[in-house]
Amino acid sequence: MRIGVLTAGGDCPGLNAVIRSVVHRAVAGYGDEVIGFEDGFRGLLEGRHRKLDLDAVSGILARGGTILGSSRLERAKLREACEQSKELARDYGIDVLVPIGGEGTLTAARMLADSGLPVVGVPKTIDNDISSTDRTFGFDTAVGVATEAMDRLKTTAESHQRVMVVEVMGRHAGWIALESGMAAGAHGICLPERPFEVDDLVAMVEERFARGKKFAVICVAEGAHPAEGSMDYQKGEIDLYGHERFAGIGNRLAIELERRLGKEARPVILGHVQRGGTPTAYDRVLATRFGLHAVDAAHRGDFGMMTALRGTRIVMVPIAEAVTVLKTVPVDRMDEAESVF
Amino acid sequence: MRIGVLTAGGDCPGLNAVIRSVVHRAVAGYGDEVIGFEDGFRGLLEGRHRKLDLDAVSGILARGGTILGSSRLERAKLREACEQSKELARDYGIDVLVPIGGEGTLTAARMLADSGLPVVGVPKTIDNDISSTDRTFGFDTAVGVATEAMDRLKTTAESHQRVMVVEVMGRHAGWIALESGMAAGAHGICLPERPFEVDDLVAMVEERFARGKKFAVICVAEGAHPAEGSMDYQKGEIDLYGHERFAGIGNRLAIELERRLGKEARPVILGHVQRGGTPTAYDRVLATRFGLHAVDAAHRGDFGMMTALRGTRIVMVPIAEAVTVLKTVPVDRMDEAESVF
Amino acid sequence: MRIGVLTAGGDCPGLNAVIRSVVHRAVAGYGDEVIGFEDGFRGLLEGRHRKLDLDAVSGILARGGTILGSSRLERAKLREACEQSKELARDYGIDVLVPIGGEGTLTAARMLADSGLPVVGVPKTIDNDISSTDRTFGFDTAVGVATEAMDRLKTTAESHQRVMVVEVMGRHAGWIALESGMAAGAHGICLPERPFEVDDLVAMVEERFARGKKFAVICVAEGAHPAEGSMDYQKGEIDLYGHERFAGIGNRLAIELERRLGKEARPVILGHVQRGGTPTAYDRVLATRFGLHAVDAAHRGDFGMMTALRGTRIVMVPIAEAVTVLKTVPVDRMDEAESVF
Amino acid sequence: MRIGVLTAGGDCPGLNAVIRSVVHRAVAGYGDEVIGFEDGFRGLLEGRHRKLDLDAVSGILARGGTILGSSRLERAKLREACEQSKELARDYGIDVLVPIGGEGTLTAARMLADSGLPVVGVPKTIDNDISSTDRTFGFDTAVGVATEAMDRLKTTAESHQRVMVVEVMGRHAGWIALESGMAAGAHGICLPERPFEVDDLVAMVEERFARGKKFAVICVAEGAHPAEGSMDYQKGEIDLYGHERFAGIGNRLAIELERRLGKEARPVILGHVQRGGTPTAYDRVLATRFGLHAVDAAHRGDFGMMTALRGTRIVMVPIAEAVTVLKTVPVDRMDEAESVF
Repeated sequence: MRIGVLTAGGDCPGLNAVIRSVVHRAVAGYGDEVIGFEDGFRGLLEGRHRKLDLDAVSGILARGGTILGSSRLERAKLREACEQSKELARDYGIDVLVPIGGEGTLTAARMLADSGLPVVGVPKTIDNDISSTDRTFGFDTAVGVATEAMDRLKTTAESHQRVMVVEVMGRHAGWIALESGMAAGAHGICLPERPFEVDDLVAMVEERFARGKKFAVICVAEGAHPAEGSMDYQKGEIDLYGHERFAGIGNRLAIELERRLGKEARPVILGHVQRGGTPTAYDRVLATRFGLHAVDAAHRGDFGMMTALRGTRIVMVPIAEAVTVLKTVPVDRMDEAESVF
Repeated sequence: MRIGVLTAGGDCPGLNAVIRSVVHRAVAGYGDEVIGFEDGFRGLLEGRHRKLDLDAVSGILARGGTILGSSRLERAKLREACEQSKELARDYGIDVLVPIGGEGTLTAARMLADSGLPVVGVPKTIDNDISSTDRTFGFDTAVGVATEAMDRLKTTAESHQRVMVVEVMGRHAGWIALESGMAAGAHGICLPERPFEVDDLVAMVEERFARGKKFAVICVAEGAHPAEGSMDYQKGEIDLYGHERFAGIGNRLAIELERRLGKEARPVILGHVQRGGTPTAYDRVLATRFGLHAVDAAHRGDFGMMTALRGTRIVMVPIAEAVTVLKTVPVDRMDEAESVF
Repeated sequence: MRIGVLTAGGDCPGLNAVIRSVVHRAVAGYGDEVIGFEDGFRGLLEGRHRKLDLDAVSGILARGGTILGSSRLERAKLREACEQSKELARDYGIDVLVPIGGEGTLTAARMLADSGLPVVGVPKTIDNDISSTDRTFGFDTAVGVATEAMDRLKTTAESHQRVMVVEVMGRHAGWIALESGMAAGAHGICLPERPFEVDDLVAMVEERFARGKKFAVICVAEGAHPAEGSMDYQKGEIDLYGHERFAGIGNRLAIELERRLGKEARPVILGHVQRGGTPTAYDRVLATRFGLHAVDAAHRGDFGMMTALRGTRIVMVPIAEAVTVLKTVPVDRMDEAESVF
Repeated sequence: MRIGVLTAGGDCPGLNAVIRSVVHRAVAGYGDEVIGFEDGFRGLLEGRHRKLDLDAVSGILARGGTILGSSRLERAKLREACEQSKELARDYGIDVLVPIGGEGTLTAARMLADSGLPVVGVPKTIDNDISSTDRTFGFDTAVGVATEAMDRLKTTAESHQRVMVVEVMGRHAGWIALESGMAAGAHGICLPERPFEVDDLVAMVEERFARGKKFAVICVAEGAHPAEGSMDYQKGEIDLYGHERFAGIGNRLAIELERRLGKEARPVILGHVQRGGTPTAYDRVLATRFGLHAVDAAHRGDFGMMTALRGTRIVMVPIAEAVTVLKTVPVDRMDEAESVF
C-alpha cells in the first residue's frame, strides 16, 4: 500500500510523533510505502513530496513542529483544492491519504472522502475542541506550558501584591484556560463559552485582599469576552495599524482591572510558546496511538473515518460527525472549576 | 457536615491537590467542617488530627507529597484497625470519611463502609492499576519523569554506543513502563504482564547496531521478569545482606545484556524520583476533580463509592468493584507499543 | 547580634534562598536573632516586622518570590525614608541591616551606611547589570525561562516558515537577551547597548530563506531601540490609553518586519514569567552564598559593603562602587554572539 | 585553514554546542574548512571523518550527546596513539586540531602539542574538576538534574518520614554533590574530598526527627567514602559478579543508616541521567564561547593552549597547567555548605 501523509493548520506538539508512528507501523508492520507531502495540502497541489522511511523519522518523536511543514488552506479555495488533490493523489499512486489536521483540514478530508479518495483522518488541535474524541494531542502540552507559566507568576504576584491577567490560547473553546487555570489554581477563569462580568472579577480580587491574600491570578482565553456593558474599554478604541492583534482581551482586562481596583494589574500573553516545543509524554502517547491506528484503519478499509480517543481506547469515528459541531466547555466543567477557586 | 480526610499508602503526586479540593468544595461550597487525620489510618487510630480550613490548604496545589503525611497499613491488622476506626470516626463526630489511597486503603475503606461508616473513597496510585477508572492521578507525573529521564539517556546512549536499561516503577502492572517507553521511543519494553525473552532483546539490539543505529534504550518495569530459562543470572545468586532490593531486574538485565552482546549496557534505576515533586497539570486537574466530586457524593449520600474517571467525566463507582481486580496492561496495548519500536 | 533583613524592588528568583541562608547562618551559626521587615523599606517605616527563626524559613529555598514581600521605593522620598529608617532600625534594636535589592535599594543602603547605620547589602537583579559582581542571582533563571521559550518557538517557527520576535527583559542592559539569545541560537539579538538597524534584520531573514532555512527567531531586549531612521513605525504612533506599555519594541518590530518582508512575523512578549517561580540550581547556590557571606561580613564589621561574585569566590565590595556605574554588555560580548549566528 | 575537531571521553551536555560554535566561527567567520573525526581519537586513528559545514550543525545547539560520537582512550595506548594521530592529522591536511575532552583527552592533546601538532583544547567534564577554569560546561546541567531530583525526593521523604540517600556523580571531586546538595537544601553532603563520619549523619537525622522535621535528604558523591571505621558494611562484602558497580556508596550508606536509625532509608542512584539531554542555558553559552574562542586562538596561533573561564571572560591557558592538578572542592566551600544545613 502507498500511503500519503500531510500535516496542515496551526502548529501542534505531537505532529512528528504521528508522522513517526504512521511510518513505523506502515513500513515496518505492513511493508507499505509512505509519501510525505510538504507544507500541507500545498505540497500535494504543488507536487512537493518525499519518501518517508524509518531513517527519515528517526529522532523526531520528542521534537516539536512538523518535519513536513504545514500551511493553512484558504476556506474559499477548499472545494477547488479538494478536486485537484483527489486527482493528484491518484497521479502519485496514493492508495490512501492520511491528513493530520484541525477542523479545516478534516472538512477538506471529508470532501475528499466524499468524492471517492480513500482518506483516514487524524484530528489535531491544541484547543481540544474537536467533537467525537475525548482529547486531542497537543492540548496537554499547551496546558502544561500555561500551567508552568502561571505557577511562576503566582509567586511574583504574591511578592508584589499584584493581579496577573494571563491570556492563553482558545479562540472558540476555553479548554486550555479551563484546565490550566484549574491546574494552576487561578482565582478567576474567563472562557469564550460564557461572557464574564468584570464586576465579578473585581469583587473576587477585593475579597481576596480583604482576607489577606494580596494577589490574584486570572486566566483568560483569548476568545473570552466581557458581558455586554461589563467592561468600559471597548474593542474599537484600541485599533492600531488597522489590526487589533496586540490589544487582545488580556491586555484590555488588565487595564480595566487596574483602573477599577487601584492596584497593579499586569497582563501576560503567552502566545505561540503554547504551540511549540517538545510534547508531553501524554501527547506523545496519544499521537503515537493515533498514527498507528490510522494505518490499521487504512488496511481495514475504514475510509472517511478518523481516529478518536474514547476512554482508554482508540476508535474510528466518521469524520463527518466530528467536524459538524465544535466541542466547547460544558456548563458542569465550568461549575467544577469555579467550585474550587 | 463534618468530613474526615486522610491519605494512606505510597506517595503520589496530586495528594495535596485532592486535599485542597476537598476543603475548598466542602468549606466554601457547603459550609462543612473538614478534619485531616495525620499519617493515614495511624492518625485516626492515635487521635492525631487537625482542622483544615482554606488557609491550611493555601499554596499546596502544586506541591508534591501530602501535608497530612501517610503511612502503610499492615494487611494483618486491617480488620482490627477498621473496627477501631469506625468507632473513633464516630467519636470525632465524623459524618463521612474520605480516605485517599491505593488498593490497600480502598479495601479498608470498603470494610469500613460495609460496617456502616459512611465512606467516600478517592483512588490513588502512580501505577494506574485500579479498575473502574480510566486513569489515576500521579500516573501522568510518574510517566513524565520517566520519559524525561529516557529522553536524556537516549542522547548519551547514542554518543557512546551503549545499551541503557531503565527500570521504572510498576510491581504488578506495567502501565508506567508502557507509556513512558512509548513516549520516549524505547526500543524494548518489559512488563510484569508478559515474561520477556532476553534473546528477543539481544536480537533487537544486534539488529539495530547492524543497521547503524548503535544504541538502544530498554524500559523495564520493576516487576517484569524473564521467561523461564531466558536469563542466565538468577535471583538467588545475587542476595546481599539478606535482601535483594538493590539487585532488581534492571541491574540484572544490564549485566546479562552486556555479557551476551559484548557491548556496554548500563542500568538506571529511577526509583522514588517518580513518586515525588510537583504534579503535572493533568494530575492536578484529575486530583482536583476527584476531590470535589467526593464531597458532592458525600452530600448526596453516595457512600461505599469512589470517584472514577470515565472518558471525560467523573463518576462514582462501588469501591468493592474497584478493588477486586487489578487493572493490568491488556494485550492490545502491548501490541500497540511493539508495533512502533 | 540582631540582624534586620528586607527585600526590596522587583521580584527575582532566589530572594527566599538569601533569606533562608541569612537565617540559617545567623541563628544556627552565630546564635543571632533575625528580624524580617515586610514589603521592603515600607515595612521598616511602618513597623511591620516579624521574627525569622529556622522554622520560618523551612521549605522556602526552592520557592520563587519572597516570603517578606517587596515594594519599590520612590526615588524622591529616598533621602527622607533613609533618615527615618536609620532611626527606626535603632528603635527596633537592629545591630545591622541586610537589605536585599537592586540599584535603588543599594543606593538607599549606601545612604544609610553613610549616615552611620551598619549595613551589609546583597545585590539583586535579574538584569545582571550591577557592577562589581560577575553575576547576580535571578539572572540565570530569567535566562533559562527565556531560552526554553525560544526553544519552543523555534520548532513552531520552522513548521510555519515564520519570523518570531521574542521580547525579553532588560531595560537598560541587554544581558538576558544576550545570553538567552546565544543559548537558544537566535538569529538576531537586539540590545539596549547598541541601536539596531532593521535593514540588517531584514537582510538576515532574507538570506536565511534564500538558503532554505525558512524561519528566524529574533531576541529583543525590552530596552532595545532601532537606529535613528531605521524603523518606520514610531513610538508616538502607537499610544493607547495614554501609556505605551503594550506596544513595546517586540510588537513594533514584528509589525515592521512583517511589512518589509511580506512574511508572517509574530511577537512573543515573555514578561513577568521571567521573574517568577523556582530558581535554577545556579541561582539558589549563588543566593545562598550571598546570604551566608553577608552574615559573616556583619560579624566581621564589614559595613557599607555588599556581597559580590568574583570568579568562584564571594567577596565584599563597597556598595558605593557598585551603584555608580551600570554594568552593560561590552562590545566584545556582542561580537561573540554575532559571530555564531 | 583546515580545522579538525573531535569529542572524547564521557558524555557531557554542551558538546554539540561547542561543535556548532567551532563550525559557525570557522566557516562563516574565517572561511575555514572543518573536519569532524568520529568517536574521538578512534576516528582519527581509523580515518573516519566527515566535513562539517553550517548545515551539518543545524539544530544541534540544544541537543545532548555529540553528533561526532565519543570514545575513551586507554591510558596505556596513549603515547602510541598520539604519535599516530600526529601523522594522520597531517595526512588529512589538518592545520590545527581541536580536541574537546576531559583530563585524559587534554593529556593526549598536550602530548600532541609537545610533539609539534598545532592543538587548541576545549576542556570538558561534568565534574567541574579541571584546573585553570572557573567552570566547565555540562556541570551546570548535571547539577540541575540532580537538584530537580532532590526537589522531588524531598516531598516524598517528608510525606513518608524517610531518609533519602541520593548518589550523584563525582568520582574524584565533589562539585556536583556540593552544588546540587546546596541548591536542594540537602541535610548532609558527602564528598570524596573529606571522609564522612556515619555517626555525624546519624546524629543529624536524629536531631531533625527530634525537632519535628521527620525526614532528611543526604547527597553523596559516588566517590565519597566513610572515615576509617565509621561504617560497618565494607566494600569487600558486597562483591557481586566480580564487579561492585551496583553496590556503590549510596546503596551501602542507605543500608547502614536504616540499620542504625531504625527508620526507612532509601537510596536513589541518579546515574547517567546527569550526563545526557539538553544542556542548560548556562552550559550552552559557556560551550558556545569556548568553541568560538578556540577558533580565534587557532587563528592567532595560540597552540598548546585551551579555553578557560575566568570570571566573566574566556581566556587561553596552557593545557599543561590544566591537567597537572585536579581541581577539588576546597575546605571553605565545604564549610559554606555546612553552615546552612
